[in-house]
Formats: sequence, structure tokens, C-alpha cells
Amino acid sequence: MTDQFAKKAQAWSARFSEPVSELVKRYTASVDFDKRLALHDIEGSLAHADMLNAVGILSDADLSAIGDGMARIRGEIERGEFTWSVDLEDVHLNIEKRLTELAGDAGKRLHTARSRNDQVATDIRLWLRATIDAVVAELESLQLALLEVAGRHADTIMPGFTHLQVAQPVTFGHHLLAYVEMFSRDAERMRDCRRRVNRLPLGAAALAGTSYPIDRERVARTLGFDGICANSLDAVSDRDFAIEFCAAAALVMMHVSRLSEELILWMSPRVGFIDLADRFCTGSSIMPQKKNPDVPELARGKTGRVNGHLVALLTLMKGQPLAYNKDNQEDKEPLFDTADTLLATLRIFADMAGGITVNAARMRQAAAEGFSTATDLADYLVRKGLPFRDAHEAVALAVRTAAQRGIDLSDLTLDELRAFSPLVEADVADSLTLEGSVQARNHPGGTAPAQVRAAVARHVQRLEGTA
Amino acid sequence: MTDQFAKKAQAWSARFSEPVSELVKRYTASVDFDKRLALHDIEGSLAHADMLNAVGILSDADLSAIGDGMARIRGEIERGEFTWSVDLEDVHLNIEKRLTELAGDAGKRLHTARSRNDQVATDIRLWLRATIDAVVAELESLQLALLEVAGRHADTIMPGFTHLQVAQPVTFGHHLLAYVEMFSRDAERMRDCRRRVNRLPLGAAALAGTSYPIDRERVARTLGFDGICANSLDAVSDRDFAIEFCAAAALVMMHVSRLSEELILWMSPRVGFIDLADRFCTGSSIMPQKKNPDVPELARGKTGRVNGHLVALLTLMKGQPLAYNKDNQEDKEPLFDTADTLLATLRIFADMAGGITVNAARMRQAAAEGFSTATDLADYLVRKGLPFRDAHEAVALAVRTAAQRGIDLSDLTLDELRAFSPLVEADVADSLTLEGSVQARNHPGGTAPAQVRAAVARHVQRLEGTA
Amino acid sequence: MTDQFAKKAQAWSARFSEPVSELVKRYTASVDFDKRLALHDIEGSLAHADMLNAVGILSDADLSAIGDGMARIRGEIERGEFTWSVDLEDVHLNIEKRLTELAGDAGKRLHTARSRNDQVATDIRLWLRATIDAVVAELESLQLALLEVAGRHADTIMPGFTHLQVAQPVTFGHHLLAYVEMFSRDAERMRDCRRRVNRLPLGAAALAGTSYPIDRERVARTLGFDGICANSLDAVSDRDFAIEFCAAAALVMMHVSRLSEELILWMSPRVGFIDLADRFCTGSSIMPQKKNPDVPELARGKTGRVNGHLVALLTLMKGQPLAYNKDNQEDKEPLFDTADTLLATLRIFADMAGGITVNAARMRQAAAEGFSTATDLADYLVRKGLPFRDAHEAVALAVRTAAQRGIDLSDLTLDELRAFSPLVEADVADSLTLEGSVQARNHPGGTAPAQVRAAVARHVQRLEGTA
Amino acid sequence: MTDQFAKKAQAWSARFSEPVSELVKRYTASVDFDKRLALHDIEGSLAHADMLNAVGILSDADLSAIGDGMARIRGEIERGEFTWSVDLEDVHLNIEKRLTELAGDAGKRLHTARSRNDQVATDIRLWLRATIDAVVAELESLQLALLEVAGRHADTIMPGFTHLQVAQPVTFGHHLLAYVEMFSRDAERMRDCRRRVNRLPLGAAALAGTSYPIDRERVARTLGFDGICANSLDAVSDRDFAIEFCAAAALVMMHVSRLSEELILWMSPRVGFIDLADRFCTGSSIMPQKKNPDVPELARGKTGRVNGHLVALLTLMKGQPLAYNKDNQEDKEPLFDTADTLLATLRIFADMAGGITVNAARMRQAAAEGFSTATDLADYLVRKGLPFRDAHEAVALAVRTAAQRGIDLSDLTLDELRAFSPLVEADVADSLTLEGSVQARNHPGGTAPAQVRAAVARHVQRLEGTA
Repeated sequence: MTDQFAKKAQAWSARFSEPVSELVKRYTASVDFDKRLALHDIEGSLAHADMLNAVGILSDADLSAIGDGMARIRGEIERGEFTWSVDLEDVHLNIEKRLTELAGDAGKRLHTARSRNDQVATDIRLWLRATIDAVVAELESLQLALLEVAGRHADTIMPGFTHLQVAQPVTFGHHLLAYVEMFSRDAERMRDCRRRVNRLPLGAAALAGTSYPIDRERVARTLGFDGICANSLDAVSDRDFAIEFCAAAALVMMHVSRLSEELILWMSPRVGFIDLADRFCTGSSIMPQKKNPDVPELARGKTGRVNGHLVALLTLMKGQPLAYNKDNQEDKEPLFDTADTLLATLRIFADMAGGITVNAARMRQAAAEGFSTATDLADYLVRKGLPFRDAHEAVALAVRTAAQRGIDLSDLTLDELRAFSPLVEADVADSLTLEGSVQARNHPGGTAPAQVRAAVARHVQRLEGTA
Repeated sequence: MTDQFAKKAQAWSARFSEPVSELVKRYTASVDFDKRLALHDIEGSLAHADMLNAVGILSDADLSAIGDGMARIRGEIERGEFTWSVDLEDVHLNIEKRLTELAGDAGKRLHTARSRNDQVATDIRLWLRATIDAVVAELESLQLALLEVAGRHADTIMPGFTHLQVAQPVTFGHHLLAYVEMFSRDAERMRDCRRRVNRLPLGAAALAGTSYPIDRERVARTLGFDGICANSLDAVSDRDFAIEFCAAAALVMMHVSRLSEELILWMSPRVGFIDLADRFCTGSSIMPQKKNPDVPELARGKTGRVNGHLVALLTLMKGQPLAYNKDNQEDKEPLFDTADTLLATLRIFADMAGGITVNAARMRQAAAEGFSTATDLADYLVRKGLPFRDAHEAVALAVRTAAQRGIDLSDLTLDELRAFSPLVEADVADSLTLEGSVQARNHPGGTAPAQVRAAVARHVQRLEGTA
Repeated sequence: MTDQFAKKAQAWSARFSEPVSELVKRYTASVDFDKRLALHDIEGSLAHADMLNAVGILSDADLSAIGDGMARIRGEIERGEFTWSVDLEDVHLNIEKRLTELAGDAGKRLHTARSRNDQVATDIRLWLRATIDAVVAELESLQLALLEVAGRHADTIMPGFTHLQVAQPVTFGHHLLAYVEMFSRDAERMRDCRRRVNRLPLGAAALAGTSYPIDRERVARTLGFDGICANSLDAVSDRDFAIEFCAAAALVMMHVSRLSEELILWMSPRVGFIDLADRFCTGSSIMPQKKNPDVPELARGKTGRVNGHLVALLTLMKGQPLAYNKDNQEDKEPLFDTADTLLATLRIFADMAGGITVNAARMRQAAAEGFSTATDLADYLVRKGLPFRDAHEAVALAVRTAAQRGIDLSDLTLDELRAFSPLVEADVADSLTLEGSVQARNHPGGTAPAQVRAAVARHVQRLEGTA
Repeated sequence: MTDQFAKKAQAWSARFSEPVSELVKRYTASVDFDKRLALHDIEGSLAHADMLNAVGILSDADLSAIGDGMARIRGEIERGEFTWSVDLEDVHLNIEKRLTELAGDAGKRLHTARSRNDQVATDIRLWLRATIDAVVAELESLQLALLEVAGRHADTIMPGFTHLQVAQPVTFGHHLLAYVEMFSRDAERMRDCRRRVNRLPLGAAALAGTSYPIDRERVARTLGFDGICANSLDAVSDRDFAIEFCAAAALVMMHVSRLSEELILWMSPRVGFIDLADRFCTGSSIMPQKKNPDVPELARGKTGRVNGHLVALLTLMKGQPLAYNKDNQEDKEPLFDTADTLLATLRIFADMAGGITVNAARMRQAAAEGFSTATDLADYLVRKGLPFRDAHEAVALAVRTAAQRGIDLSDLTLDELRAFSPLVEADVADSLTLEGSVQARNHPGGTAPAQVRAAVARHVQRLEGTA
């Protein structure tokens, strides 16, 4: 009886009368990208072999031969000495072929009671679980970096914008805390996703389970899974976890895109609120004066990439009949690139956040110029008894007058202010200062420096608790 | 002092020198679609008023006037008597204007310490929370409907397909359980999303919090929120919840599209595994013989719709600087249509599942024709001592021979089978029957009828426990 | 023989044993949105009837009865008196039912030699052709509006940005012309799309053509189509035109989003380059000073909507077997909403462009502050003989020095400049002024005022030529 | 004066005080993927140098040195000997650095009057133009392959499906011609896109044009462009061509996905209409009998990939202010992968189409079983004078009766048929045969064999005319 792997060069199996064409071989081979799963493939195979031995399907000698062979293969891979062959299609057959060279019939027995369908599903889940843990760690590093800056700028006043128009004064620390909230939700979402990733497909075999007396719970325990996939057809055809991860990643990148947009705006010379360290910027091939915020721009652009991968996966799975179809091979590249993009971006942002230089004077000047305390004047009138809607209208008239004269509300005299409402008294001054405005917003979630400091402390404690 | 609402017809406020153009009014008005939030808007306003009163900002008389006015407005809306005006832009101003007519200055005081930015965020979260609860209930109804059919067909043998080629026999009950797993994960995902939806934005005001001594925790308790949004800038600009819901909905619809594809295939005359009740089908305007599976086809098509809404929302939020921008108004229509599509589809599928008629004879015949027990023969040889890879090759030769003669494996005589491997003995017959094949897969997740029955029971218990 | 339409309330046809359920009726009915095709449906029916008569299938009397009936129905629809019934599913059956009431057997004969499959495809193509013509007209109006402003500001200097950093001086007219180029390409793309839309599907019947001796070319001529769809299966299942239109629309909206982003930035107080007319802005419910650029913000948000519809249609068609499937009914809502969004947005932008007020002083000041003529200094040195790469480096040093001293390049004395390169002479001054810089770029496509004026003239001539 | 390239290892230019961090270098470098543009970059540089010389900016000696250096670099690249450096960021700086080594100051002069912004835009357009030509060629090969099969099967009867239910008989040749129509539209769309790609950005420099007296028309002629980009800001920031190409590619892949779906269905054993050659299929690692249609499945999956890239690019460009931003670097990978996917898929499908084996007997049997000539019977009754709607109803009753008896319409006796309509006479038999049905649809676009043969001939002539 000839060797199955040797025959693959001629034809897939005895069932086939001609070999796969070269064009098809290249079109269908996945080893170029799925070899990244190699160590997880070995980990899964060892757990499978251990179980086969425990239930009496695999002898101690075979188990030992498989263990030795896999140890050697792992070393070859880690040292970059392993020879990957496109003829052998994917990471699984490459490793199994090498194992058979090293371990003989024991290697041929490893594939008992499993199929590539449940094998690849197991490999990806192991890889994705590790990836999610890395993403969560990077999200936490980024939060800590932002918290450090936010803590330093709990009192630094800047204009809060809505519609990119000056709205009300806020502190820069408060502004950065908004991003801490976003990345904190992202980490929570990743952890929820991890629970659904961390289920064992192995044992589903091709699609129906296997006729061997396997012990799936044992394999799950060995590999650290929380449980098993409860239906074999679902186990081999489910790619929800990949989509859910990409959807969570798209939200992370969307948050990154918002932060990037702001960094770019803040660094634009007309705004000039911050500067990024030179090492995160590049110059121009033609304009000698340029210093460009390349990193946030590129990150903003990479939002599209991750959105695209999410769409790719949703399109991929649409309308697929059960169970496994070859379409599913297309799940890996979008997933891998999403993970790479996410990890690289988060790492560089955690590093970059610390390199932000704040121009507090320009921030303050900008806050002082846009009637940012108009709401405070309205609130003042309400406290004096005017219904809010009437107060809003009185202040709008005052703003109009000040704008026409090119001055700020705080530049109007008490008498001038009283022209818009007789309720105005000398104590109005406090409501019209920037400091008065931010300090007045002293409730949970508000921009008062005391609230910002408390929020920073709470977040740091949370993150250091998990670390 | 003139009334602010009356002035809106002329100009937005005293700050403006000309009214909004008619074209702009229609382009920017949202009342046509956001009036669906009306009852949640009232609910949120009442909780806000209650809190303003509790902290001493609103008098008892004002609170009472607001309560009476809102009760009347609620009635007008429920009876379809409320007059919505595009001039008043959105649901919030429409209701507040009417309240001011009914409650006078008390109505004008309601907007104290809040802004439309935190108001609309609160309304959507209240609406989405209720929607998620409805979606989870529909997902559970659909699971129960599928479980009922699965239980009846725990022994009904059909071909399990991979690559739409016959792979191994499975039971129809087992096949349907794969969908129960999917919809069960969907419900879990919706519940995770709900936790992030169920946070109170109110109190963030425009973006920075408010200078009034508000009690956000009180409002959260009144409205049944799990907690407050911890940063005011984030509270008014966050639309993660909408995106996360649409991503979860896209997964539900993807599962529906797979089930639909299978129902359509199974009902196609060449396959003929099932029939759908006439009430879920339509005919043709020209071909008198047609009975078309319109419902699954339309549902499959609606997958695109929900994917599209997800992309719309991700695109919408990309690169938006903080805090609120008018772009965000575009969050509602995709979100509303996603919810409508999801609820209608799940409802109709739960109903349709019960109307599936199974043609067990055709299923069995199809399973008998595609060498579906070839894997069982290979497993048999492995149990006799052959390494799996060699057994696979021996069976491939047997399949090739049988296929060339136009017969099935079970039609080969014992002697003929022994030609492929001398290990074959008389007991091979059991491995080659369809019943033997499915019964052998008797481990958790496998297709054996006993496993199917146990899984059905487990799921029913889970669902009735939650009901 | 009972009437088919009356029977639909009970069951689809004699082939069915129970009526469509109420839930299914609402789920599958399209009349709520496809009634917008009504006048095109009548136009197509009249052309079909004319042809049936010409080839001898329909009598003169029947043709006349159909013509009279349709004239009356058209009137009822235009006056809003037509009663649309969800029971009759779609626009086609609603109109045909009414025609049968009005014209008796002649009405029943109209559906000879066609099917709803080719009928709806014809209706949509007629509608889309008219829509494309309207879109092209709006694109041209918008170009003309931009050209008017560009012409007025051919000499107005502003900083040209790359990476949102000041790069080189450009004129505001030149900047606006970039958008004229974009919208001009958009119109070209729409016209290309129109050629593929403008083909007649009618005659394909359900999918295979018809056994009647029809004259498709005659129908095509009557309806103004450029030709016929050359394969019946393709004719009824093709939705390329909808996707191609949405892809072209997505590009338009992407351009709109870029212009919107710039308008918002330019109107932000830190930048202050322009102001939008009050009638395109709204205020705040809480902050009396606010004037928000709602229209560009909303338009930027609507980019997502159109991207989403494109994804919806691509997902819809993925993997559909030939020929017509009910999935296709989902083509209409994304298509209609894309058209509505596009037309409303273009109209409002054409109007808004004229209402832009330019603050030329702030533009000039911004251009003067960012070393925007550094490239001109490098070019000067190259003209004096220095290789470009060396000149770039010399100027970078000069910029660094000036930046450290807080001054501009033009503030450096001749001697100071000579310290960076001995090639600098007194004539350098011309290269360092803003006017010198823009006037020097006097080649086709460059920002020199003369080029801007020529480009405006060329575009206006092109557009008035087509008008 | 030190060398600018050497300094990049330390800091971007004299303007910078610290070098780019290693993390940032890897994050922002594009040379790993943009080196694929190398030969186009050289082509563009040579045309630029030729023009600089023609207008007197570059000496003959410098031009000659640049020409020699570039010839050598081209050789190094083609032989795989060129050393690419991530430190040098992108393809442009890598080549320019090497040129400067080889050609000294002449190399440093090459970048006169251009910028990387217009350089990269030119390179991509040159590459995309060549790619579009290759795609069109592959689309034509695929059409020819399909036409060859269609011609052989102009008479082969199969069931035409709508809703995957048997509708009317068609010929297999007619069915394949539907795909020829689709791929023919695709080629037309690619050619339209090519016109907009084939414009020269060079001369736009960084964003504003250049102060040198360049001759853009000369460069355009040298490089075979149809004209120049007419506005410099647009020239460097426009990526419409990439999006338009990906949108056209998404339509191609959607068509491929439909054909793939059908090939998979047709090869499924329950249908059994065709077989694919073994060299396009693979087997199973566990089920010895399997022969899986991997190529169409994988192609169907790759639809998602291209849809994803389209979304990535649309998201990328949304809301970008003018002119060039670093985001744009993200345009390349989606574009390159789209082109690779498209070309590989089209090539393999053209090859696979010839390897389709048709099982005409099963096709015919399937057409005979589903009442596929019911419409013909209705048409027959109409020709005898019955209004179509009444004929439809009479035939529906006949179908119901036949279905209940498990027989086909053609199995009903003349008397039995007359029970449904007294208009039935002996000549009805012709209308009920499959051959009679297809031959009757003998008008342009219809399925009659004569029409199919004519269409094949017309298409072949068109394609050979363009070849």
C-alpha cells in the first residue's frame, strides 16, 4: 500500500484519476497563511493523541512516538528550519506528513477520530483566544497611558466642541477620559467574545462526530477550553467567533479613528493644542518645513481595512449550506490581518499617548473666545427664577450683541448684561469664568477637576486590579 | 419675551438673522422617524422631572403640571391624535412644545439641566433595551419551534453534506440542532450587548455635565438602568451600542440566511427533502404550476439589508471628533430598520418551522446513494489495526470500484471488500448500514439519536427555565 | 371560472390549498415601496400592449380599452385617489386588477407574453434612467455653483494643506476646482452607467422568453431604450445596474463627505476661513451661542447610508442561482433611498455653495504662518544650481532656525538666509511671498490665478454646452 | 552638506530632532507591498527626466546618467538582486537612493518639480491601467470558454429555475449565455473605468503644481496617458479610480459567485447535471469517497474578500480633507489583492469551463418532471381565445390534479385536459413537449436553439474582432 501523501502529488486519493492542476494547487493552497497556526496545530494534536491513548485507541508507544516527533517539529518550526510545501496544501498536512516521516505508523494513527474540519476549527480558536488576550492587554496599556496624561491635565481647560463649534469649557483630562471609556468597553466586548471562542470543536470530526469512543471533555480540559461545541455540524461550520471578533475590532478601530482625527486637528497649526513627538511623525520629500502626523493618519485609514474584513467575513458566510464548505478557508486572512492591524495600532498608540505635548495656553485662549460660558449664564438666570427656555433666549440676544461688537460675554458690563435680563446681579461674574464653569459641573461624569481626578483613580485601580 | 418655539419658524434663536430654509428643514428634520421614540422620550422626561424635584430644582406644582401634561400627551400619541410638526424638527421639541402649551412655565423648566444630546441618547437606549428583550424572546421562540421538529426527527436519517457532496449520514434532528446552537449564541450575544446598552447618559447635558446639583443615580434607578455613563463627552457621542446591536443582528441574519438556503435547496424538486406549508409560499403570475419558497428567499435577501446598516453605522462614526455632531442623527434609521427586519424575520421563521413537512423516504434514499458510510468502513479497518491513513486509501479504492460499477459499498460482497483489505470480516456489515453509522456517533455532539434526544431535552429545559 | 385576483385573498392559485398567512403577506408585500414605479409600470404596459396589437395578438378594441383604462388609472394615481392594497402584493397586480375592473377581458389579456419578472425589471430601468438624468443635472448645478465661487476667488490666497499641516499657498478658487473635477467625473460615471441601464428586459417573460411572436425591438424603440437585453435568463435576474448606480452614488457621497469635512473645519472658530449662511445652520437647545453647520455634518453622515446600501445590494446578489429569486425584491429600497439621498444632498449643496462667505484675511494670515513658501526657496536654490535633494536639506535647516526663533522664512535677512546656502541672492524675496509662490505655479493644473480663471472658463463652457 | 537619505536613519530632515521609532518605521513603511510598482516607478521617472531635459531643467549628461542608472536598477529588480530597505520607507525612496549611488548629483536632480504625492499617484495609475487590460483579456478568455460549451449544448434541454423550482425548459447553452452577458458587461465597465484611470497626475507636485516650467502634456504622451489631471489638488488626493475598479471587480466576483453556486448545485449528487474535471476538485482527509468542487466554493468565498476591499477603500476616503493625507497609503493593499484575486479567479474559471462534463439525460429528466410546460399550455389556451389570466387559472387546476396523481401534464389524456378547458384540441401535444417549448421561444433573447446558436456566433465574432 503506497503512502497517501506521496500520492497526493499524482492525485488526491485513489478516488481521483488525475492530479490537481498547478493553477488549482496555488489557488486552493492555504499553507502560506495558515502556517501561522502551526504551534496551535501541534498543541491540539498532542491533546488529541493524549485522549486517544486515554480511551485505549492509541498505544503508549505510539503516543510517545507522536510526542517525540511533535517536539522535534516544533523545534524545526521555531528555528525556521521546517520546509513548508504548497503541494501539501495546508499547515495540517504539512505537519502530519513530517510526523509520519519521523514517527512512522504512529503518525498515520494520529488522524484517527478527527478530520481537518474540526482540526482547523480548533487551531483557529486556540489562536484567537491567545490573540484576544493580547488585544485586551494592549487595550489596558493604552488606557493606562491615556490615564497618565489625563491625570496630569485634570485642570487644563480647553474648549469642548459640538459640531466642531465651541460649546462649553472642559478639561483636557476629561476629554481623554472619554477615550478611556471607549477602550474600556472594547476590552469588555473582547472578553465577552472570548467566552464564545473558548469552546472545543474537536470531536465533531468531518461533520457528524466519530464512531470512536472519544472523550471530548478531556481534550477540552487539556487545552483550557471552557467546554465543548455541543453540535458537530455547528462545530465545523461555525465561524461566528471570527465575525464577532472582527466586529469588536472594528469598534476599537472606530474609536482609534476618532482619537486620530482629534490628534490631527489638534496638531494642525490653526488649532495648535498639542504636538506629537518627532518620532511619530515624518517629513516631506519636497516641502522642507513639514512635520506630518503620519501615525494617527495611517491609523485612521486602517479603520477601513478592518471594516472591510468584517464585511468580507459576513459576505463569506451568507447563504452557506451546512456543514463545512471550502469557502470557509477564506476566513483566515481577514481574521489574521485584523488581529495584526489591531495589535500594531494599539501598541503604537499606547507609546504615542505618552509623547503628547500640550499647549495649555492655546487651549485656554480657544476656550475663552467662543462664548463657551453662555450656558452658564443661562443656568444662572434659571437659578434666579427664569424658566430655562426664556433664559436661553435672553442669552442668545446677549451673545448676538457681543458678537457684533467682537467681544466676549465676560467683557460686557453688569449694566449691559442687565439689559438682557434684570435678574443679573454682581455674582454673575463667577458663572462667566472658565474655571467657574468647569468646577460647577461637579457630579459623576461631569468635567469638574475633582471628578476627573476621581475617575482617573477609579480606572487605574480597576486596571491594576486586573493586571 | 417671545416664545422660543414660535421664533423657530423665523430663526433658530436670537443668534440667527434668517430662518432655516425649507429645503434644509426637510433635510435635517428627524421627526418622521424619531417619533417612534415618543413614549420613551416621555418616560425619560418624567424621570428627569422627578429628579429635578427631588434635588429642589423643580417645585411640586411644576412636577405635577408636567406629569399631567405628559399623561395627556401620551394619550394623544397612543390614540394617534398628536400633531407632529416638521417645523419643530424632532420628537423632543414636538413634545416639549406641546407640554409648554399644556403646562406653561413648568414645561419650559423641564429642559433645565439637560440637553437634546443626552436626551436623545437616553431615549434610544430605552428603546433599544426593549427591542433587545423582544429579539431575545423571538430567538427563544424560534429555538423552541426548531426543537419541536428536531425532537420528532431524532431518528430520521438524511445525508450530511460537506461541499454539498454526500459526506456521512446524520439525522434531521441533529441537523436542526445546529441552528438551535446558532440562535442560542445569538441570544447570548444580545444579552451581552444589553449590559452595555443599559447605562444612563442623562446628566451629560450638552457634553460637559451641568452646573445643577443633579442626582444621576436616582434617574438611573427610576428608568431601570444598571448604572450611569461615566464620562459626559462619551455619553453624548457614543453610538457603540447601536453598532454592537447591528453586528449581533447581522450574525442572526447570517444564520437565517444559511437556514433559508437549506430550506430552498431541500424544497427544490431535485432534492425534495421537505415541503413548506402553502401559507409561506406564493405562486407565479405566469407559470401556473409554481409554488415558490418566498419567505426563506426574502429572508436570505434581507441579510444584505442588515449587513448594509452595520456598514452605514461604522462609516458614520469613522473619524468623528468629539463630542456630538449632527452626523449622529443618521444612527436611527439603520438601527430601526435592523430591529424591524430582525423581529419580523424571527417571528415568521418560528411560525414557518412548525409547518415543515419532511419526506423521510427521500432523505434516506439520498443518504443511501453517496457512499456515505465510507468513513465507517475506514474506521472499521482502523479498529482492526490498520493505520488511519492506510485505511483511508484502501476505502478510496473500494469506492472507486463501486462507483465504476454503479453500486454502493454495501452492495459489494464480503470477498470483494476483502480484496481491498484482508482485515474485512463478516461483522463489517453493521458498519455499512445508515443506522449503524449514526448510532455509532454516540458521544456529546455526535449525531446518534440518543445524543439528539438528550440535546433537545437539555435545550428545552434551558429555554423553559428562562421563560 | 372565478377571477384570479379575487382568489388571491384565499389562495395564490388553484395550485394552493391555503391562503398566504397575514404575517407572510406583510413580510412579502412590496406595494408600500414599489408603488413609486406606478407611472413607469403603466408606460411599460402601454408599450407592451401596442406591440401585442402590432403583431396581431391583441385586437384594436382591446388595445383601446387598455389605453383608456390606463389613462384613468394614471389620473387616479396622480390625484392620489388610487387605492393601494397590500393583499394585491405589488404595484403590478394592483394596477392590473384595477385595469381588469375598468377594461374587463382586455385587461386580463395584457399579461400575455410577459411575466412580472421582466415587467419589474423594465419598470426599475425606466425609473433609474430618469433618476440618473436628474442626478446628472444636479451634479451640473452643483458644479456651476462651485465655479461661480471659484471664479470670484481665483486670487484669494489660502494655505494648501497636506496632512492638515500647512504645505504651500494655493488659491481658494483652485481648491474649489478640485471638487468640480470630482463632480465632473461623477457625472461621467453616471452617464456610463446609464448606457447599461438603458436596455429592455421585456420579452424575457418569466426567464426563457415567450412562445408568442413578439417584437422586442419595437417595444425598445417605444420606450426609448438603446437596445434589448440579449439573454432572457440574464434579463430577469440581472441587477448589475442597481449596484453600479449605488457604487457611483457612493463615490459622489464620498466627495460630498470630503467637502463637508472641509466646510466644517473651515467654519470652526480656530480656523475661521468661511461662514455658512444662517439658513443652513441650526442652534442648540441649551447653548445659546451655538451656530452649527448641520447640513454638511448630516451630509457627511449620509455617506454611511449610501455605502451601506451598496453593501446591501452586493450581499443580496452574492451566490444567487439563476434566474429570478424572491431575494431580488430587496433591491428596491436601497436603490430608492440612495437616489433620494443623492438628489436631496446635491440640491442642498448647490444652494449652500452660493451662501459661503469667505474670510480672506484669515486665509491669508494662515498661509503666511506655516513656512508655506519653503518649497519655493528650495526650488530657488535648484534654479541656482543646487541638486534638489541638497536644496531640500538646506531649507529644512533654515525652517528649523526660523521656527526656533518664532518667525517666518521671509522674516530672515538675506545674510541669515545665505548662512544656509551661499547661492541665495537679493532676488530670493520674490520666491518667498505668497503671491510669488502661487503665480509661479503657472502650468495646466497649477494654482496660479491665470490657470484658475482659465479652468473656470473651460468648465463653464463645457456645462453650458451640455445644458 | 550631508546626504538626505543617510540622515533619514537619524531623523526625517533637519527639521526633526529625533529619528522615527522602530515601531513607527514598521507601521508606516510601505515598501513591502509598494515595491510591486517598481518598474512603473522607473517608467514614470524616465518620462519625467525626459521632460525636465526637454524644457531645459536637466542637462543631457544628467539625463543620460539617470537613464543608465535606471536601466541598471531595472535589471537588478528583474533579477531579484535589488536590496529593499524598510528604512527607506517606500519604493520611491529605495529606487532614488540607489539611483543617487549610481548617478550621483544627477540622481538628486530627478526629484525636481515633482513630489512623492504625484509620483505615487502616477505609478498606481500606470499599474492599474496594465491590470485592467489583463482583466479584460481574462474576461474575454472566460467568455470564449463559456461560448464553446454553450455552442455544444445549444440543444441540450435542462429545467430553467426560478426560486430554485422548475419553471420552464431552457437549453444549457442558453443558460451559459446569461453568464457571457454578465462578463461582457464587466469588460465594458472595466473599459469605462480605464478611461478615468488613464490621466496623468505628475506635475501636481505636492499639491499646488510647481514653479518650474514643466510640460505635462509631453509626459502624458510619453507614458501613453489620454490626458492630464486638470487640478493639482485633485490629482494628488483622488483615489476614485481605485474605488471604481474595486466596484467593477466586486460585480465580476458577484457573477462568479452565482456561476459557482450553480456549478456546486449542479454537481451535488441529488442534482447531478454536471461533473467537474478531477483536477479542479479535492478529496477529504477522512471520507475516502469525497470529490469536492473546491474551486467554485473558494471563488464564491472570495466574493467576500473583494466586497471587503471595496468597503475598505470607501471608508478610507470618507471625510478626508484635501489634499494628500497619509491615510491614502492604505489604498494599495486592497487594490493589489483585488487585482490578484480577480485575475487568478478568472484564469482558473476559463480553464475549468472547458472541463465541465454534462449529464444531458439527468438534465432532461429533471425538466420532464416539474410541469415545466404548464406555461405553454396556458399560452396554447390564450391562442385559442381565452384571456391569459383565465388560462393561467385553468392550467393551475390541471397541474393540481396531475400532481395529486403523481403524473406530468403530458400524461393527462386529451379528454382529461378538456375537463379543464373545452378549448383543448389534439394539437395541444406539441405545446407540452420539452422540445416544442424551447423551440417556440424563438425571438431575440429567447431559449430556442436557433437563437442560442446565433447568439454564440455573434459573441464569438465580437470577441475575435477585439482580439
